[in-house]
Amino acid sequence: AKDTDHRILVGSRDADRARVSAREYLADLDDRGIDASVSGAGNAAAADRAEVIVLAVPPYVVADTITAIESAIGSAILVSPAVGLEHDESGFHHDPPPAGSVTAHAARTAPEGVPVVGTFHNLPAARLANLDADLGLDTLVVGAPGDAKQTVMELVNAIEGLDGLDAGGIGNAPEAEAMVPLLLNVAKNEGLDDIGIEFG
Amino acid sequence: AKDTDHRILVGSRDADRARVSAREYLADLDDRGIDASVSGAGNAAAADRAEVIVLAVPPYVVADTITAIESAIGSAILVSPAVGLEHDESGFHHDPPPAGSVTAHAARTAPEGVPVVGTFHNLPAARLANLDADLGLDTLVVGAPGDAKQTVMELVNAIEGLDGLDAGGIGNAPEAEAMVPLLLNVAKNEGLDDIGIEFG
Repeated sequence: AKDTDHRILVGSRDADRARVSAREYLADLDDRGIDASVSGAGNAAAADRAEVIVLAVPPYVVADTITAIESAIGSAILVSPAVGLEHDESGFHHDPPPAGSVTAHAARTAPEGVPVVGTFHNLPAARLANLDADLGLDTLVVGAPGDAKQTVMELVNAIEGLDGLDAGGIGNAPEAEAMVPLLLNVAKNEGLDDIGIEFG
Repeated sequence: AKDTDHRILVGSRDADRARVSAREYLADLDDRGIDASVSGAGNAAAADRAEVIVLAVPPYVVADTITAIESAIGSAILVSPAVGLEHDESGFHHDPPPAGSVTAHAARTAPEGVPVVGTFHNLPAARLANLDADLGLDTLVVGAPGDAKQTVMELVNAIEGLDGLDAGGIGNAPEAEAMVPLLLNVAKNEGLDDIGIEFG
């Protein structure tokens, strides 16, 4: 919404909550003189109008969310940013679903032919949400080679300060998602906050 | 050998090969006016004199290497930099041993009480070997909290341009080692070469 003229639809199981969030985002953008298109809707209504659907939900509701919007997906692309995590006294650990990754779990659940691309896993939420922050971050993109992956890569790269890197097929989603507990542990152990990564 | 006055022992199953490598390294350092201590020996003889032993061997010979030097380890620390990888037409994938990581595999094989710390996994070999390169890299350090991990962290940080980051216990070694196939895939898919990572 900040760096492009894409129309942003915020979905929620509760359409009113989605509309409240959309209004907050619009107010934030308006404060900066940015004229953006952000609106809220129920998940299925949002999915019905979307060309790219970001499954920004906890990993354990990814399947239910896909099922709930199934008939509205049409020719849209699904983007999976969620990661399975567990936590014990030694820190965070990768705890993927049986499919090996949340991205693969989403791909198994999605209707046949719907492309699923994994990305945005390893982004520090607060820095991403801070519209004044200089991101300076990379994010990994995993998915079958083709138009859908290319579209997602372009969306990623359109965000200022963010670079998408092709980390392979969905078979590499476990490795990409496993970076997240590492980031959380490094942040905790090194007294850092809201960190991401850069490759190079 | 370049940035500190540590004495470096190169070990090999073939002591003569170790001596040849040591002489090559010394010549490289001498070309740059660096007076270093690097010598070669058979694995057990090198281990016997070492305080820190880096198991710089392929993952499938880590256990044999530990067994071969077992009686020479004494109070030394074992450092595990190896990663299990497989490769298919879609790229590189993490292929850990049954212990979940090479670091855990080394820890299971090591005599009781010998500390094992995993690090150096995600370093680009050619950049590391190039004594004129500006590294600008981070590497993750995994292992039980304590003196051994602290010693390894100091060794890592003594290498100019390299920062060690505490990524948790050996339970997080799978995530740390899984970064390596990602790096190889990103390098291949993005046409990059010899890349590493920085957190922040």
